[in-house]
Amino acid sequence: MINTDVLVIGGSATGLVAGMTAKSNNPEKSVTVIRKEEKVMIPCGIPYIFGSVDSSDNNILPDAGLIGLGVDIVIDEVLSVDTEAKTCKTKSGEEYSYGKLIMGTGSMPAIPKWLKGTELDNVFTIPKNKVYLDDFHKKLENFNNIVVVGAGFIGVEVSDEINKTGKNVTLVEILPNVLGATFDAEFASKAEDMLVERGVNVKTNCGIQEILGDGKVESVKFADDTTMEADAVILSLGYMPNTTLAKEMGLALNEFGFIKADQYRRTSVKDVFAAGDCAEKVCFSTGKLSKIMLASTACTEARIAGLNLYDLNTFSTFKGTIGVYSTCIGDTGFGVAGLIEQTAVAEGFKVVTGEFTGMNRHPGKLAGAHSETVKLIVSEQSGLILGGEVMSGSSAGELTNVMGFAIQNNMTINDLLVTQIGTQPMLTASPAGYPLIKAAEVVAKKLKAKKAPAMA
Amino acid sequence: MINTDVLVIGGSATGLVAGMTAKSNNPEKSVTVIRKEEKVMIPCGIPYIFGSVDSSDNNILPDAGLIGLGVDIVIDEVLSVDTEAKTCKTKSGEEYSYGKLIMGTGSMPAIPKWLKGTELDNVFTIPKNKVYLDDFHKKLENFNNIVVVGAGFIGVEVSDEINKTGKNVTLVEILPNVLGATFDAEFASKAEDMLVERGVNVKTNCGIQEILGDGKVESVKFADDTTMEADAVILSLGYMPNTTLAKEMGLALNEFGFIKADQYRRTSVKDVFAAGDCAEKVCFSTGKLSKIMLASTACTEARIAGLNLYDLNTFSTFKGTIGVYSTCIGDTGFGVAGLIEQTAVAEGFKVVTGEFTGMNRHPGKLAGAHSETVKLIVSEQSGLILGGEVMSGSSAGELTNVMGFAIQNNMTINDLLVTQIGTQPMLTASPAGYPLIKAAEVVAKKLKAKKAPAMA
Repeated sequence: MINTDVLVIGGSATGLVAGMTAKSNNPEKSVTVIRKEEKVMIPCGIPYIFGSVDSSDNNILPDAGLIGLGVDIVIDEVLSVDTEAKTCKTKSGEEYSYGKLIMGTGSMPAIPKWLKGTELDNVFTIPKNKVYLDDFHKKLENFNNIVVVGAGFIGVEVSDEINKTGKNVTLVEILPNVLGATFDAEFASKAEDMLVERGVNVKTNCGIQEILGDGKVESVKFADDTTMEADAVILSLGYMPNTTLAKEMGLALNEFGFIKADQYRRTSVKDVFAAGDCAEKVCFSTGKLSKIMLASTACTEARIAGLNLYDLNTFSTFKGTIGVYSTCIGDTGFGVAGLIEQTAVAEGFKVVTGEFTGMNRHPGKLAGAHSETVKLIVSEQSGLILGGEVMSGSSAGELTNVMGFAIQNNMTINDLLVTQIGTQPMLTASPAGYPLIKAAEVVAKKLKAKKAPAMA
Repeated sequence: MINTDVLVIGGSATGLVAGMTAKSNNPEKSVTVIRKEEKVMIPCGIPYIFGSVDSSDNNILPDAGLIGLGVDIVIDEVLSVDTEAKTCKTKSGEEYSYGKLIMGTGSMPAIPKWLKGTELDNVFTIPKNKVYLDDFHKKLENFNNIVVVGAGFIGVEVSDEINKTGKNVTLVEILPNVLGATFDAEFASKAEDMLVERGVNVKTNCGIQEILGDGKVESVKFADDTTMEADAVILSLGYMPNTTLAKEMGLALNEFGFIKADQYRRTSVKDVFAAGDCAEKVCFSTGKLSKIMLASTACTEARIAGLNLYDLNTFSTFKGTIGVYSTCIGDTGFGVAGLIEQTAVAEGFKVVTGEFTGMNRHPGKLAGAHSETVKLIVSEQSGLILGGEVMSGSSAGELTNVMGFAIQNNMTINDLLVTQIGTQPMLTASPAGYPLIKAAEVVAKKLKAKKAPAMA
């Protein structure tokens, strides 16, 4: 029996940050991270191992942070946990006793049960598993026609990267646009145009019916009964929380299958925390259950769990999960924070939107200048900023974070209009034409116009 | 006599944004912008006309925004204003009557009276004046040895740009580092190293005593009595508010010579507003008078003036001026928001700082990856974030804005620890090693350690 004060199950983003935060804030406590993988992939870097970074060995989450702090890393698999005795047994036959337990078991690729042919050879998913991905990467060399099913971030990034290597890639999406669930149509359609321009075959408004083949993939049959030859199929149809162990432990799960957890990431069982993809999230804007899975969200939750193990340190400041994410296609960055218009409307918000396009440098004649579009989604009644979308150069990721900070601080359009930004010719849009503020002006004008009749 | 509802004096950042905001929010009102310059320079782009954008013609603030809205642009100079009669007279002999007046007269380069030799030929400043700058730019071709005096943003950017064209540039600064008033030493010294590496001769801890020459510049004499040959001298020793007209109009000025203005940018005289470099600012963190002059600040103030001409629309949300600025040297961006450590300490804050260095991409092996350092300056007592500094790639400008939003929303370290950020391999640092959050963790640990003894 090995005793550890804090036991973390899982070694991806959540396990890493939870382990580091727990140890860093409680140096006198022993902290152990148990994970299955010898080497852990940087989760969001996975699509890039097929092209830009060339090999999974260039995409490893370093252990140095954990080791430097004195966290024990164990490569093993927890098979069972006794939450009464506060012990667990592992595959290698070891037994651990813990004081606090953090579940960071993550997520697994979703494979729809209704889809026929997923058992065929050369049907792949994108799990966070180096051994699997290395095998897939190697096999990829022999394939020419690759069909990627599902055009969320992973599907888009994987398609773009594999396309870079000269393969014939077809990306299939049931929605009208790639990234159609994440961005409003005007942004999603731009992303799609760029992907097409870069040589990816994009097939939207198109479901998949069946994967066909004799033992291995030979073709894909679409919802419209047409078929397409394929050497391999990559399913990027979302992820499911990995909660097999949690269920066996008796942790309460929510209706979407996530481990129930409060704002400090405490589960239904004393001294057991859950963070990251496996843990329940509620939406920042509505309080409803959310299915968002992001490494960045996981890191925030892991930090919260690690900070609140022994005292509730981050009292009442975490208000729910917002999606803040970005991607890039070529030199164009796309980002979104909070609710997009279609989601906000579907949730029942009465919204006013404003959009502005400028340049991300000033003057726009500077080398490397890129057009920059910002759209804001605002509650008509309160003026609160519900969400924002951006399309720009490589600063789009941080500009998305600016919008994320605005939303998380409950800023209104009025606040945004008087907020001070910093600008620099080589680094940002111009102060007079900063798209985020100009988009706010567009919203403000619309709000004013809407109020005018009532006042008359 | 020409009647206009709103008259804006000055056509740079303030005039442009004030004119556009006034008209956009009051479409039924006539708005006139009077400015001296036929073509207006993008103010922050000026240093780049000497190198990166090649000519001032590539750095023009477009009139299209004003014209599109129906704002009248008049090239003329206001010589006097009668604030009782609400009329003004111009150099061309025209007379205007106005309903609301916005002063956007900007600033002029400071030329110290104690410095001998400033009247010599080939002593230049960097005013926002295209005719002057074009003349200077043309003359520059004939110079080889150029001494730039004062290593603030303008001095650094101008030196770097002129150096790019193959000239022998010496940058002289009385402080221990270039940008030493804007950044704490660890950032300023990095900027200095890069500038030196790029070929600029940097002479710090060195005042200038006199500019010597017979009719035109021949050499510069430093405080230590050494001299250096020079064909031209560029004085970049800060700017003074341009308030000659304001004084004659009887507007109250503050002790630093700025036009007194309240948070809605209303001056001491009814129906007269002032915004931008000529207008009073108070510090966001202390409420003390501030001397900050930034085009971005000017735009915010101009927007506030334009929004509040007829009603106080942005009620009480503008809390004072914070400096949010950035620059870049080569592919390295430097940014600062709020108070740096040395200023915060000088103001009397008891501060705790945290710094973290990571990479701006993840994995760090991605092409274009750059190290990213963030430093946070935090009030020990309240945990409020007072300021932040960043050094990274070209996203440093927007990352600086993220910090600016944190400060303006009165975020504490606790808030920051649970704030959700978005990350993407090609666009940002990793979620587990995002320097802004990691720096916050460093601060949180220090704060906890400081509190521990008191609790024991």
